[in-house]
Amino acid sequence: MINIPKGTKDVLPREAYKWHYIEDAARKTAELYNMKEIRTPVFEHTELFLRGVGDTTDIVNKEMYTFKDKGDRSITLKPEGTAGAARSFIENGMGGGVLPVKMYYITPAFRYERPQAGRLREFHQFGVEVYGSAAPDADAEVIFAAASFLKKLGIKDVKLNINSIGCKTCRARYNAALKAYLQPHLGEMCPTCRERFDKNPLRILDCKEEGCKKITHDAPRILDYLCDDCSEHFKKVQQLLTAGGLEFNIDPNIVRGLDYYTRTVFEFVSESIGAQGTVCGGGRYDGLIEELGGNHTPAVGFAAGIERLILLMENTGVAFPEDCGPEVFVAGMDDDSRLAAFKVVCKLREEGISAECDHMGKSIKAQFKYADKIGAKYVIALGCNELESGECNIKCMADGATSPVKICDICACFKNKMSEK
Amino acid sequence: MINIPKGTKDVLPREAYKWHYIEDAARKTAELYNMKEIRTPVFEHTELFLRGVGDTTDIVNKEMYTFKDKGDRSITLKPEGTAGAARSFIENGMGGGVLPVKMYYITPAFRYERPQAGRLREFHQFGVEVYGSAAPDADAEVIFAAASFLKKLGIKDVKLNINSIGCKTCRARYNAALKAYLQPHLGEMCPTCRERFDKNPLRILDCKEEGCKKITHDAPRILDYLCDDCSEHFKKVQQLLTAGGLEFNIDPNIVRGLDYYTRTVFEFVSESIGAQGTVCGGGRYDGLIEELGGNHTPAVGFAAGIERLILLMENTGVAFPEDCGPEVFVAGMDDDSRLAAFKVVCKLREEGISAECDHMGKSIKAQFKYADKIGAKYVIALGCNELESGECNIKCMADGATSPVKICDICACFKNKMSEK
Repeated sequence: MINIPKGTKDVLPREAYKWHYIEDAARKTAELYNMKEIRTPVFEHTELFLRGVGDTTDIVNKEMYTFKDKGDRSITLKPEGTAGAARSFIENGMGGGVLPVKMYYITPAFRYERPQAGRLREFHQFGVEVYGSAAPDADAEVIFAAASFLKKLGIKDVKLNINSIGCKTCRARYNAALKAYLQPHLGEMCPTCRERFDKNPLRILDCKEEGCKKITHDAPRILDYLCDDCSEHFKKVQQLLTAGGLEFNIDPNIVRGLDYYTRTVFEFVSESIGAQGTVCGGGRYDGLIEELGGNHTPAVGFAAGIERLILLMENTGVAFPEDCGPEVFVAGMDDDSRLAAFKVVCKLREEGISAECDHMGKSIKAQFKYADKIGAKYVIALGCNELESGECNIKCMADGATSPVKICDICACFKNKMSEK
Repeated sequence: MINIPKGTKDVLPREAYKWHYIEDAARKTAELYNMKEIRTPVFEHTELFLRGVGDTTDIVNKEMYTFKDKGDRSITLKPEGTAGAARSFIENGMGGGVLPVKMYYITPAFRYERPQAGRLREFHQFGVEVYGSAAPDADAEVIFAAASFLKKLGIKDVKLNINSIGCKTCRARYNAALKAYLQPHLGEMCPTCRERFDKNPLRILDCKEEGCKKITHDAPRILDYLCDDCSEHFKKVQQLLTAGGLEFNIDPNIVRGLDYYTRTVFEFVSESIGAQGTVCGGGRYDGLIEELGGNHTPAVGFAAGIERLILLMENTGVAFPEDCGPEVFVAGMDDDSRLAAFKVVCKLREEGISAECDHMGKSIKAQFKYADKIGAKYVIALGCNELESGECNIKCMADGATSPVKICDICACFKNKMSEK
């Protein structure tokens, strides 16, 4: 027997409704916000992620599915959704059209990590990208879209944390202050952070090691080093969130350590999915499009992990509406009536009514049992008596009530039932 | 600048509606037929495809994206959708539950081929699998599902061709007859076919080389070698197709050369997408589940290429219903009224009404132009007069008509409009 690859998971037919529910909420939310879908390939040239995710990140250094294709190109399965969208924006000259460009994606992503609950090697993201607007309105727009999405799903148990990490100007001043503060503790920090100290000190604030956490606890905060423009921008974002009725906390510990991240960063967190409870995160990355070879284009977006959302909903008892069974099952007793049942089912389906009959040569009793198992709302049994008289009974499975109908009127009868709903 | 990998394509925001239309038709058709979705990983252990697609096929020999992951496992991006579904069926013990199992999938698939119109290295398939029924009813069910799907899309320009390639018993007799016929021509055939002669002579009938085609033109036909059971099965399938009102031709040239394909094979073909005009193909593969290590389980299914469907629809002028723009655009003239516009838009979206405002600091004139470009149905302009009086006008973009409304009633007004639809 051949098994599924380690760290990946099937979505089985009996659980697909959960995915449909989440994707449907994602699409409907995006529509409310006038965002259109973009789909980019599962793999890209590796260089895109080196530049678009960052070659100092764990994702790029340890976790990418990178290989050579038959044409000797280095390609990589996408580890996240933004880089591909940004590449497409540039390659297709979208910056020259109507701005802002508001897009969303629903995509698989791939990271070679240690598999654990809600963390798979192939996982799925719903993400949103707004390109072309530097205004705080766009930051607020993206944060509201995330909030609407989570609300639509019925998720209540989340908090919004926001922060600003400023621009290059603020960052230079802040990095100097941060390094001055950290310098005396350099010997006590983990080897990775010692490397970060020179390359990218901001990322030290992200370290999960207890020792480093202790050291950074009282470190200077970037919010105190924002330039006037960044400070004004952050204030305006907060004003818009309040105007739209969205509660938030300012959390100075949210950082994104890459140069092209700027200003607003945010996270929706929950305590119901373990310590690292981020269900959705995003921010502004005004430097990304340029980093990838495009014209300077302000950009802001978020991404949410679908597996983590399902886990959160399951852990907090948020209900997924289940699939219903077929409207009607038509049973047949012998060869002739089975053929008649098949014909009726064909017609019903042609009229847009979900219908089912037996494909296994089951006995009439087994057919009724099967109809019940698959959740059919009504059952009709055809036999030689019914074929002779041209009449049959429709049995409602919920209450057992039966009502007579001519075989030739079955379709019309169910069309009526559907239009009454 | 970094380009998209050769042979792959983005679905841009302006064309996503075509994909939504096709996927929506696929899901709705599947629902009518009581089929539930299965999703399997993008990559699988390479062995799955060696056994599930067949190690004498071009797909496996020349076209697979195979590589080693960081754990030194040989993994392969799925070149088609059936093998993963079959692996999942076995691994999750679905054969022990309610039968038949009726599933569908919508999946990317990957083949390293020479890119050409409608043929990409990453392409997408909608497919259907019915496992557990050996009855001709299941064959008919799958063929009807394919026909319903194409009809739902509005595709008329297709023909259904069917054939039977029998079972192991018929195949042994037929292979002997075929080899006897081909033997004298062996020297004139292409090198690949000369190899096939010993391994799998049936596949010679599939050869695209003119020389080989000429030779096989008068070859014996497998239909003349069917055993009684296979013959009866094929007759019954035809009877069911006729009963359900589906026209078909018998085409003895449709073959699937692998051992686990059995009995019914079929294709929906169109002359509007070039010589190889198959838009959807399928058949029975009663030997597949066993080949992959499961219990003997009859199986039948089809797959349709989504890019080819889009091409066919475009070539034959089948219309895709386009996305509509947002219901309403709310413009603001100055800081205060822009904030008011933002608040109104927040509320509208909360009520499920798609709404948009400016995120670019555009002038009022530019905002109207933008509203028109994105296809907003109504526009409301807010300025200091409107804020003072609490009243504004709703302008209908289709006819230019305006109607007055209190700012605090905008939401209720659009809720009314929506419920009237």
